[in-house]
Amino acid sequence: LLSRRPTVLAMSTTDQSYWSSIHADIETHLKQAIPIRPPLVVFEPMHHLTFIAPQTSAPALCIAACELVGGHRDQAMAAASALRLMHASASTHENLPLTDRPNTRQTVYHTFGPNIELLIADGMISFGFELLAQTNDPDQNNSVRVLQAIIEISRAMGSQGVMEGQYNESQYGESDGEKLFPAAWLHNVCKKKEGALHSCAGACGAILGGGSEEEIEKLRRYGLYVGMIQGIFNRFERNEWSWKEVNELRELALKELKDFNQAKVKTISRLVETKLCNV
Amino acid sequence: LLSRRPTVLAMSTTDQSYWSSIHADIETHLKQAIPIRPPLVVFEPMHHLTFIAPQTSAPALCIAACELVGGHRDQAMAAASALRLMHASASTHENLPLTDRPNTRQTVYHTFGPNIELLIADGMISFGFELLAQTNDPDQNNSVRVLQAIIEISRAMGSQGVMEGQYNESQYGESDGEKLFPAAWLHNVCKKKEGALHSCAGACGAILGGGSEEEIEKLRRYGLYVGMIQGIFNRFERNEWSWKEVNELRELALKELKDFNQAKVKTISRLVETKLCNV
Repeated sequence: LLSRRPTVLAMSTTDQSYWSSIHADIETHLKQAIPIRPPLVVFEPMHHLTFIAPQTSAPALCIAACELVGGHRDQAMAAASALRLMHASASTHENLPLTDRPNTRQTVYHTFGPNIELLIADGMISFGFELLAQTNDPDQNNSVRVLQAIIEISRAMGSQGVMEGQYNESQYGESDGEKLFPAAWLHNVCKKKEGALHSCAGACGAILGGGSEEEIEKLRRYGLYVGMIQGIFNRFERNEWSWKEVNELRELALKELKDFNQAKVKTISRLVETKLCNV
Repeated sequence: LLSRRPTVLAMSTTDQSYWSSIHADIETHLKQAIPIRPPLVVFEPMHHLTFIAPQTSAPALCIAACELVGGHRDQAMAAASALRLMHASASTHENLPLTDRPNTRQTVYHTFGPNIELLIADGMISFGFELLAQTNDPDQNNSVRVLQAIIEISRAMGSQGVMEGQYNESQYGESDGEKLFPAAWLHNVCKKKEGALHSCAGACGAILGGGSEEEIEKLRRYGLYVGMIQGIFNRFERNEWSWKEVNELRELALKELKDFNQAKVKTISRLVETKLCNV
């Protein structure tokens, strides 16, 4: 499952305060966007499910990518919040007890009951798009960029990403047991789940920050590698094989950053500095 | 549940061919938008679940509202398709067998299994937004209108509509049994489910067709009444009480149409001509 074990980054104080400030800003934005207000049957569980879900670094990457291309944090805040909502929704639905899911985690406590969690997580997908669409601002003339970000997120969550990864991940657990280790399966799941989410985050941040086509594509690929590294470490023990895979992905990731402002790159590249990833 | 019993409209040949042509155009558009293509694990069930779901008149209302304010059918086609996808997704999720849903319809056959139906219906929500966001066209300068329609649909499906109605509907079945008839409950469910969906459809059609603020609000309210009438007839037998309710709603609905082009009104008003609603 997505981000079962949260990645904790140990880094320099400057870098740490950069990422901490991003996380804090997203948290504040989301708390304002989802206050506990009427109808309580909607907003109470939505608030709960959003903040209880496992975290992902995709929203923070979205902000960092926006700032890397010279944009302002506010420009990517709604997209980052939408990504967090979508991820929380996907996590909630992954843990629902369905009749054909023998492997659903028994340890997950369903505070509001599966029926409400199913419906509210549906609403969280739409609510994420609502937050993003609302940032349309005639003064900024940003409507085309906002629509591009909506397409990126809808593809990553819908037809071309996370959903396919979730399905493939669930099939493995059911048919092959945990003993087998098919590298192709792992690659596919990491690429489609964490990979698609972070790839979309990088692209959205660059789009909303006003980046060029080239910058958008570089940060899209950077996000893909970041997500795949996290996906591998989320699912697989740290051994010779996984370090080799991760190091290859890290090289590819860093190559995408070489033409950006190197002072800013130092911070964003922390996401793939494997020695810093303490799971 | 939403549209358990489809509403069949009996009407004049001209009106009939108008609505038939709208339905056929939406069907064609959706078949092109969701071809059975790779990844098959995504598009095969998405195609199936979209076309097997109970129909709703909301997408057709969206097109009719667009044409009523002088817009072209194509301008509202993606929004109509998105509404159909969202409705199919909601229907799919309503019928999933969850551990705390003793009343789930046993007659629904889950062709692809509940796990896939859960994930794919999530993807259908995002895919609906993707279709709509993609209609952004610099030549038409329509990005702000498209974003407005995205906000309308996300609110109707998310924080302010269908989801709350689904929840309230499920609560009634569980706690009060079928014998009791609380009018307030019925009103609330019809308003939030069919009402919110049709209200959003009317508003979206008017927005995308270039309607004025006043036209948008009239068609939003018209849609609300259309949806509530359908909601009442979907859930309740035709007796003195329900006819009285429906007639009141019909009067309110027709009042919203009185300032539009009366030749066109004749057709769109068929949606509330109760004598024509043969369930």
